[in-house]
Amino acid sequence: MDIEEFRRRGHEMVDFICDYHRSVEQLPVRSQVEPGYLAEILPTEAPQSGELFSAILADVASKIMPGMTHWQSPSFFAYYPANHSFPAILGELLCAGLNVVGFSWIGSPAATELETIVLDWLAKLLGLPGGFLSVTADGRPGKGGGVIQGTASEAALVCLLAARARAMVRRPADDQTRLVAYTSDQAHSAIKKACMVAGVVHCRLLPTIEQDAFALQPAVLQAAIEADLAAGLLPCFYCATVGSTSSCAVDPLRHLFGTARAHNIWCHVDAAYAGSAAVCPELRPSFDGLELADSFSMNPHKWLLVNSDCSALWVQDAEPLKMALSLTPVFLHAKGNTLDFKDWQVPLGRRFRALKVWFVLRSYGAAGLQAYIRHHVRLAGWFAARVRADERFELAAPPRFGLVCFRLKGASREQNAALLETLNVSGKLFMVHTELAGQYTLRFALGSTNVQQRHVEAAWQEISDCSARILGGEVHGT
Amino acid sequence: MDIEEFRRRGHEMVDFICDYHRSVEQLPVRSQVEPGYLAEILPTEAPQSGELFSAILADVASKIMPGMTHWQSPSFFAYYPANHSFPAILGELLCAGLNVVGFSWIGSPAATELETIVLDWLAKLLGLPGGFLSVTADGRPGKGGGVIQGTASEAALVCLLAARARAMVRRPADDQTRLVAYTSDQAHSAIKKACMVAGVVHCRLLPTIEQDAFALQPAVLQAAIEADLAAGLLPCFYCATVGSTSSCAVDPLRHLFGTARAHNIWCHVDAAYAGSAAVCPELRPSFDGLELADSFSMNPHKWLLVNSDCSALWVQDAEPLKMALSLTPVFLHAKGNTLDFKDWQVPLGRRFRALKVWFVLRSYGAAGLQAYIRHHVRLAGWFAARVRADERFELAAPPRFGLVCFRLKGASREQNAALLETLNVSGKLFMVHTELAGQYTLRFALGSTNVQQRHVEAAWQEISDCSARILGGEVHGT
Repeated sequence: MDIEEFRRRGHEMVDFICDYHRSVEQLPVRSQVEPGYLAEILPTEAPQSGELFSAILADVASKIMPGMTHWQSPSFFAYYPANHSFPAILGELLCAGLNVVGFSWIGSPAATELETIVLDWLAKLLGLPGGFLSVTADGRPGKGGGVIQGTASEAALVCLLAARARAMVRRPADDQTRLVAYTSDQAHSAIKKACMVAGVVHCRLLPTIEQDAFALQPAVLQAAIEADLAAGLLPCFYCATVGSTSSCAVDPLRHLFGTARAHNIWCHVDAAYAGSAAVCPELRPSFDGLELADSFSMNPHKWLLVNSDCSALWVQDAEPLKMALSLTPVFLHAKGNTLDFKDWQVPLGRRFRALKVWFVLRSYGAAGLQAYIRHHVRLAGWFAARVRADERFELAAPPRFGLVCFRLKGASREQNAALLETLNVSGKLFMVHTELAGQYTLRFALGSTNVQQRHVEAAWQEISDCSARILGGEVHGT
Repeated sequence: MDIEEFRRRGHEMVDFICDYHRSVEQLPVRSQVEPGYLAEILPTEAPQSGELFSAILADVASKIMPGMTHWQSPSFFAYYPANHSFPAILGELLCAGLNVVGFSWIGSPAATELETIVLDWLAKLLGLPGGFLSVTADGRPGKGGGVIQGTASEAALVCLLAARARAMVRRPADDQTRLVAYTSDQAHSAIKKACMVAGVVHCRLLPTIEQDAFALQPAVLQAAIEADLAAGLLPCFYCATVGSTSSCAVDPLRHLFGTARAHNIWCHVDAAYAGSAAVCPELRPSFDGLELADSFSMNPHKWLLVNSDCSALWVQDAEPLKMALSLTPVFLHAKGNTLDFKDWQVPLGRRFRALKVWFVLRSYGAAGLQAYIRHHVRLAGWFAARVRADERFELAAPPRFGLVCFRLKGASREQNAALLETLNVSGKLFMVHTELAGQYTLRFALGSTNVQQRHVEAAWQEISDCSARILGGEVHGT
């Protein structure tokens, strides 16, 4: 493919994406294929000679598209959103077109420097404490700063590694198996996985209860730390969640971090989904106490219009990260102007992901991002009000940000599961369920880029109609 | 930005990339900016209101481009290549346009299924043993298969974790600090970093010597394993390299793996760069013994025309990976049709990267990829012949695939360093150096997508001219 053919095919692909966005709301949201569908219709080997691009694009339309679950459908209410935007797609396209590897500063200075700059921009937009910026208030290089990770899982992992490194200074290697990490039973599974990866064998998933809206209570953390200390273990890491995966629970950061810091424990905040809400000052009370955190992560690729992958991580002091992840001896760490992001992450290679963040922040501006978040929070509020007003339903947790957890009141687990599966099979919307206090719970997670009032109304209507059929005995559990 | 504006801006961005590819060989290969250049010319905060896309694109041209080191320049001979291709860019664009998150099968069935299929295609193209395929010779689901990781570092890490999980079955957690990993002193730093991440405290970088062309000798591995066993340690992981970073050294897989397997050690192959060469049958002798490997990784994003990130990893048995990385108890692991790739990697989220691999394999075909690799190997051979024929130079290691390591013969370290810096400052080409047997060595790493004979001739001419000036005393060491 030469430059002129690429130009032609590139324009076609852009047009394909335009058509996709125009038609996506007519498509079944959850893919309706059966496992193994694709192997039945694709060859078992690569072709011997190159094929025409038109043939490939035709196969995308006929063979790939049926196997898509449409995360960009305005009727996608599953998991948490993975929203994106046109400026972000353009940023990703440019990233691919330039294809530089920014593991070190010289690998492409603009890649490293723009990343630092846009993460400072974003930190300010989110109202993060000054310690998370790369520059101090008087303009000198700070000890902290931001970095783009692929996912919140990786952000949590590198912070756990930093915590481990800090805790293991001047300790024998055998102490490693005495380290303890804490989080709540509502935390993302990524925390447990990070412990598995890092070989931190004591990972405490501390209990929360419905009466506390699934927020971890400081006394529970305090008791766990004391018990572990009494048993001769080494508490080193605590991860609080703002906006848990199940129910969008918000841990009370200030008190929990006060408890953890008294024991020199690294305090991390996983706000993968809800972090984006902090662009709105009125939604910041959920983040009170952030100045006590060692690290904070949120995913612009969830709810801030940047396509995957883009997880932002800030630390107040990058030195423990480098202790954990740099192969350069500490005394050789560059102080000053150049920054090698390879020492802030697990992989060596890295793409120029700052471009898409920059494109989004500039295209929307602070006001545009705030309006976007407020629009979603308002729509979720509308939906929650319908649930509250309908005696067939109950809220399963306080609605927060764009998430509403609910269920058929007094109905069986099977009936609730049947409601969800009937909705998903219809193709008209897609939700997933969770378990809260042992009860089957439907999650209505709002945040698709193009969701409007009419999509939420249609979803509510569908949920209401389906529920009537299930409660009337017309549909049975699977 | 609405759909019609995106269409217009998307076409413009495609055109921008076309212009870039047309002009890239005129640009200084290594960026010539000073650290901190970008902060001086960008605002310190995101704008309050959205800006026009034309303003953003203008800033890309005027502010970002000077800070680029051009990995896509045909005169980029640094590190190893990160080549890409127009079909891959189109695949990345489509990936961004669809923006699905394929952590589980239902997240988008096509994303998981296409990944399995294209990695089978690629395994066959590379001549991998059948155990690495997802399907057995008689068409049943195999125990192994392929997965796309972000980087070879992550591929090595997950294999180390699998090895650790396998070794720790029915062992107390305290045994974790007795685990030992082996590789050679020529291995990529990613192996040592993987050990740091996994908390594997004994990481043996076994010595190699110039007389063996920096390949690890089985007797050295054998002696190390025996010494560790005698000390009560637990050998669990060995990583061989085909195409080391420094000099493209090739470890003799068959004998090393015979040694390692006798002690039930997980055998991994890091062929991040050189793995692509295996598409050519005549280059496969370097890979002899692969059927003894537990895992094999190579990066299509280095030398097989797929833009970053795309590192392919195959295992002969996925169960230890899942033991290490799945949060689902082993007895619940799905046997059969659906596959959740989150259990084969550290992060949860994942992009639809299989699209770009599929586009490349189909656009080039087996014959096209072979021709591409052979073209580069031939050009590197031409360059090596010039070095050999010029008595001012010496080869520092046997030239292999696209890499030629050389230096000014009998010259000082400072003179060789001056040669490299003079070349890089000229902007006409970009190389990096390495240390081989304690000597400063220049690396000529050929593999840019559009490199032609004339670029290699121009590079040789520049190297020759610069060398004359340095040997003549006109240029002094830095």
